[in-house]
Amino acid sequence: MRDVAVIGTGMTKFGSLGRVTSRELVTAASIEAMKDAGIEPKDIDAVYIGQLSGDIFEHQMHAAPGIPDYLGLANVPATRVEAACASGGLSIMHAVMAVAGGFYDLVLAAGAEKMTNLPTAHVTEALSMCADDVFEVSLGVTFPGAFAMMARAHDKEYGTNAEMRAAVAVKNHEHALLNPKAQFQKQISIDKVLNSIMIADPLTLYDCSPITDGAAAAIVVPWEDRHKYEGIPVKVRSFAQASDTMSLHDRSDLTGFTTTKIAAQKAFRMANLEPKDIDILEIHDCFTIAEIMALEDMGFYKKGEGGRAALDGETRRDGHLPVNVSGGLKAKGHPIGATGVAQVVEIANQLRGKAGKRQVADVEIGMTQNLGGSGSTIVCHILERGD
Amino acid sequence: MRDVAVIGTGMTKFGSLGRVTSRELVTAASIEAMKDAGIEPKDIDAVYIGQLSGDIFEHQMHAAPGIPDYLGLANVPATRVEAACASGGLSIMHAVMAVAGGFYDLVLAAGAEKMTNLPTAHVTEALSMCADDVFEVSLGVTFPGAFAMMARAHDKEYGTNAEMRAAVAVKNHEHALLNPKAQFQKQISIDKVLNSIMIADPLTLYDCSPITDGAAAAIVVPWEDRHKYEGIPVKVRSFAQASDTMSLHDRSDLTGFTTTKIAAQKAFRMANLEPKDIDILEIHDCFTIAEIMALEDMGFYKKGEGGRAALDGETRRDGHLPVNVSGGLKAKGHPIGATGVAQVVEIANQLRGKAGKRQVADVEIGMTQNLGGSGSTIVCHILERGD
Repeated sequence: MRDVAVIGTGMTKFGSLGRVTSRELVTAASIEAMKDAGIEPKDIDAVYIGQLSGDIFEHQMHAAPGIPDYLGLANVPATRVEAACASGGLSIMHAVMAVAGGFYDLVLAAGAEKMTNLPTAHVTEALSMCADDVFEVSLGVTFPGAFAMMARAHDKEYGTNAEMRAAVAVKNHEHALLNPKAQFQKQISIDKVLNSIMIADPLTLYDCSPITDGAAAAIVVPWEDRHKYEGIPVKVRSFAQASDTMSLHDRSDLTGFTTTKIAAQKAFRMANLEPKDIDILEIHDCFTIAEIMALEDMGFYKKGEGGRAALDGETRRDGHLPVNVSGGLKAKGHPIGATGVAQVVEIANQLRGKAGKRQVADVEIGMTQNLGGSGSTIVCHILERGD
Repeated sequence: MRDVAVIGTGMTKFGSLGRVTSRELVTAASIEAMKDAGIEPKDIDAVYIGQLSGDIFEHQMHAAPGIPDYLGLANVPATRVEAACASGGLSIMHAVMAVAGGFYDLVLAAGAEKMTNLPTAHVTEALSMCADDVFEVSLGVTFPGAFAMMARAHDKEYGTNAEMRAAVAVKNHEHALLNPKAQFQKQISIDKVLNSIMIADPLTLYDCSPITDGAAAAIVVPWEDRHKYEGIPVKVRSFAQASDTMSLHDRSDLTGFTTTKIAAQKAFRMANLEPKDIDILEIHDCFTIAEIMALEDMGFYKKGEGGRAALDGETRRDGHLPVNVSGGLKAKGHPIGATGVAQVVEIANQLRGKAGKRQVADVEIGMTQNLGGSGSTIVCHILERGD
């Protein structure tokens, strides 16, 4: 297995982007990534795209060949992967595997979603299909409800509370102020979160990530080839994927995800690293409680300590473990298929010193955690500053 | 890159299967494949599934984790791949790549679709989203129309005619008489095809593959491990994938697919084989004209000779190049995500001497061609009898 480098990244503005297709968005992100890497379309051997549902959002399936088509690239293999909100993570992972396995020498890993064409209720309904339709969705459960149940369980078991969750939202909104591509540039307060409308008790509006359009892309090459290109390289130290039951009722515990634990442990083992070695994190904060649970499940905090850590500012950009400096899903936005790719883009750019005003000093190693469904899929990556 | 073997296959009955989910179908096919291979769920390191659209057909996205869930398998990586009607081929290919690249030692490659829940017009409309929505679908083109245009171009350029196309349908229906899992066990005649209702001129009802429910699965391991298991091994000699523009108007020729040519050439090159070395073929006959074009594009016949070959019986089970002995998409049925997997299942079973009443004698090497959209994705595999 060959070592792998990310040598270029691209990302569109995230937000409500009007009358464009995800194909146009992913083309723009890909061109940015190619320019960053110093490559041309003809250099690309294969393409992956993470996308949840072009059919529901845009009346377009078969998204993958559309990318080489719009890039003027003839005939390269192009594959869509989907695992709910972890689709982007799987796009990156399969690009990395394809290069590591020696199948291709330069792969474009992209992700995109165009969600704002539909009314909010329809989007929420569409997303609910990523949970178990037979046992959950048909009975009325949507994701705000599922994560609200987890928040209640976490509160009961560990004394986590609304202020702690609100601190996650406040932090990520504050981070997004420094990210010009984030959906929201809007400072909020704990009071604002607590007093916003109730979505699914105990989660209020500001506990929830928004509906977003956007695309992200990364260029992946063999580590040994990294100096052939202009783009500053970042080493992919490890990747890991795990699955769990579709339904929550089949699990023994609602206060965390077994999948996050397993994927993180696999990623640490493959990289021969421990949580203490990680300098910066991008975590799947689809709901504030998800960031808290992930930090605990990945081993950065003991169970029950994740909420306090947020309240104490430990996970702020200037804290000892910066989490979601991009603004996270909460404030950067959450265009489903793009999210896992955008997490890797942020970590790569931080490690390359290309994170602009939100650059965190002296970061050597970063990690991502991308979640699909009710944690039925988790994908983790660990990246290291290159040479 | 390690050599790879298929050691087990499974397939449900194809047809209109009533009130079951694709998750139940794929579980049944997977259990059959596991029994055939002589393995248990705990032996599985990773799962791939090809599926076009659980959301539209079944109100269920995020299909992949549902498979290990129903198999009682905890936490293995599970990934859905989608490339329109070539989704199943990509499932097999990614399972093969994952084993060849050394990432996993035993992978379940599955495919499934549950299509008959919706009225025919809605299914046709759903499938149309695999073509270019911006330039084609929004103007009213569906796949019968697109392939009708190709048939007209082929007729004009090469003198292919309705009788030749009908011969493909008659042959594949005849083959399906020997396949108890095929959707149709019904002999038809050339006159029957010619006189069936016009779908998109010049394609009549019997030129078109049906709407089908079904699932298929295969177990993939390293070639060097093949004797660890009970299942009779088949060697994967090569795999290849190619893409093309989404829209037909961007191509120079409507009488064939550049993608089929490229993917077949790649597959032949990787296997160090030529068309004359292939003993048996499973071809993507979504429409009769597609089988004719594929045989030409892959190099088995010169352009313009594919129709005559069908009419002359050369591609029948008892001809010199048996094509779609399973019944093909036309008569075995075409549950989108399952199709590419089912093609490999048929070839593997023929090479293993496990094809029952339709067993072709003395077949050593077989090949598949799986098509997505208007040929915007093609996936080919070449398999060889094991030892």
